[in-house]
Amino acid sequence: MSNLGEFDLIHRYFERSSKDHHIVLGIGDDAAAVHVPSGEVLLTCTDTLVAGRHFPDITAAYDIGWKSLAVNLSDIAAMGGVARWATLALTMPAADPIWLEGFAAGFFALADLHGVSLIGGDTTRGPLSITIHVLGTTQAEGMIKRQGARPGDAIYVSGYPGEAAWVLECLLRGAAPGELRCRLDRPEPRLHLGRYLQNKATAAIDISDGLVQDLQHILRASGVGATLDIARLPRRGMDSAKPSLQQSLAGGDDYELLFTLPAGQLINDWTDEPILTCIGHIDAEPGLRGLGLTGLEPMDLRGYQHF
Amino acid sequence: MSNLGEFDLIHRYFERSSKDHHIVLGIGDDAAAVHVPSGEVLLTCTDTLVAGRHFPDITAAYDIGWKSLAVNLSDIAAMGGVARWATLALTMPAADPIWLEGFAAGFFALADLHGVSLIGGDTTRGPLSITIHVLGTTQAEGMIKRQGARPGDAIYVSGYPGEAAWVLECLLRGAAPGELRCRLDRPEPRLHLGRYLQNKATAAIDISDGLVQDLQHILRASGVGATLDIARLPRRGMDSAKPSLQQSLAGGDDYELLFTLPAGQLINDWTDEPILTCIGHIDAEPGLRGLGLTGLEPMDLRGYQHF
Repeated sequence: MSNLGEFDLIHRYFERSSKDHHIVLGIGDDAAAVHVPSGEVLLTCTDTLVAGRHFPDITAAYDIGWKSLAVNLSDIAAMGGVARWATLALTMPAADPIWLEGFAAGFFALADLHGVSLIGGDTTRGPLSITIHVLGTTQAEGMIKRQGARPGDAIYVSGYPGEAAWVLECLLRGAAPGELRCRLDRPEPRLHLGRYLQNKATAAIDISDGLVQDLQHILRASGVGATLDIARLPRRGMDSAKPSLQQSLAGGDDYELLFTLPAGQLINDWTDEPILTCIGHIDAEPGLRGLGLTGLEPMDLRGYQHF
Repeated sequence: MSNLGEFDLIHRYFERSSKDHHIVLGIGDDAAAVHVPSGEVLLTCTDTLVAGRHFPDITAAYDIGWKSLAVNLSDIAAMGGVARWATLALTMPAADPIWLEGFAAGFFALADLHGVSLIGGDTTRGPLSITIHVLGTTQAEGMIKRQGARPGDAIYVSGYPGEAAWVLECLLRGAAPGELRCRLDRPEPRLHLGRYLQNKATAAIDISDGLVQDLQHILRASGVGATLDIARLPRRGMDSAKPSLQQSLAGGDDYELLFTLPAGQLINDWTDEPILTCIGHIDAEPGLRGLGLTGLEPMDLRGYQHF
């Protein structure tokens, strides 16, 4: 164990200059202060990752730093917002310089990709757990909520849901496909896609708890139902292996976006990563249909259970 | 253990209506959205409480809910800000309805006192730990930083620092004075005082880590030194017992405000709680003096060590 005090370690690993002129006061006072761009609303979200529960204990410090920021940026992406500032509450058993260096490198690698500045936080001693809070902004009228889906809307998903759960399963069996390991450890928050969907999507959510469970949040919030076309679920593998249908439908930890578009709304000018796939449509009748085809029981599709 | 899922427990214990018309979108989407009042800067701070480290394991759920919000509101108070919104990241071993009811009651009792709305959060399973993030606002020109103290300024402290450490020590000895137990478990964030000090105080900090350690943050940030008048330290007790001088100078967990005022700046129109006491003055010469009187070693005055 090191003799690093809280203030030393904040200074050494987490204090960096930022060119963001919206920051009035950064790390180092009782609170940070920022100017929210005029005419925009402030978006705020927080997510905690607990060691052994949200990532395997063997996960590299770099990947923990990356992922704990990624899951929060993903929430800003699902609102169609711009991610701007983050605070980091880091609870760890000891102030280990090697671990901290790796963690900070992963955190800032992703933060820099999206222009996010770390403006504050707290470090405490205890079982390893990371709570990040991200602040973003958006024009109020461009904000994408969960509640706007309407009958006839097409349901789209980005990327290949189920891969994170599949890679985790392989990892626990001691046979993780190395090239896909990043799908579990370094999710890519879909901020670019989220902004593209502003004033296009009628509803959006990020798939952190599993496609079906998260789709049902949209259905409940919007007071509608849906039919899924199971055959169109995007599934990708390596060699002969790929995620199971259950993993695609109910595996959590993917951080892709699930969203609805009015019939006829074109998105063929989206030529960037990730791929977008239409997987069904919204119905006026409540409930979720099309699942009978799969032979899966409702219990198999519950998605991630927090408790 | 209960069968409460994350979404049930958020709904049951934490979703409440708010009259705050600045809230565009509250609990229940990927992120919350708020309007920051025009012309004001946004203040943001976060603090984590870990069971067994920041509160004794026997602490009542109500007091944990109160205290985990209080320590964050205290940071907004130290900036002279108005506390407005909070997010709650709650990690707990199980979703125990009785504990949750107590925790929520304590949290909202304090939130309601200061007009703070809970607008989002996360619940996860793991060792008990609470990270709260508070958002406040202030006029940029009224913000009180740590860096404004100038030679000749008077140093003031609110309340009776050292009481929390003293009560904790009594508690661990099995003899906590019941009437003072709330000084440890239910700190009162000094938001009213903080706003009063706007455009009066040259620097301020909340005493979470001990008076001397926190004063030194002001001295370093301001590039000045100080002389403390030990005899003037406000100390209060019960019967014949009271905090030791070391507890008054280095005990953490008090959440009183330490601030500096220009010579001649009057504060005799402050007639409210807490009491304010002048305990020294700022010098041009770096370092902290006056401590020789006490017979205490520098090591005794380090304050709370996070690691």
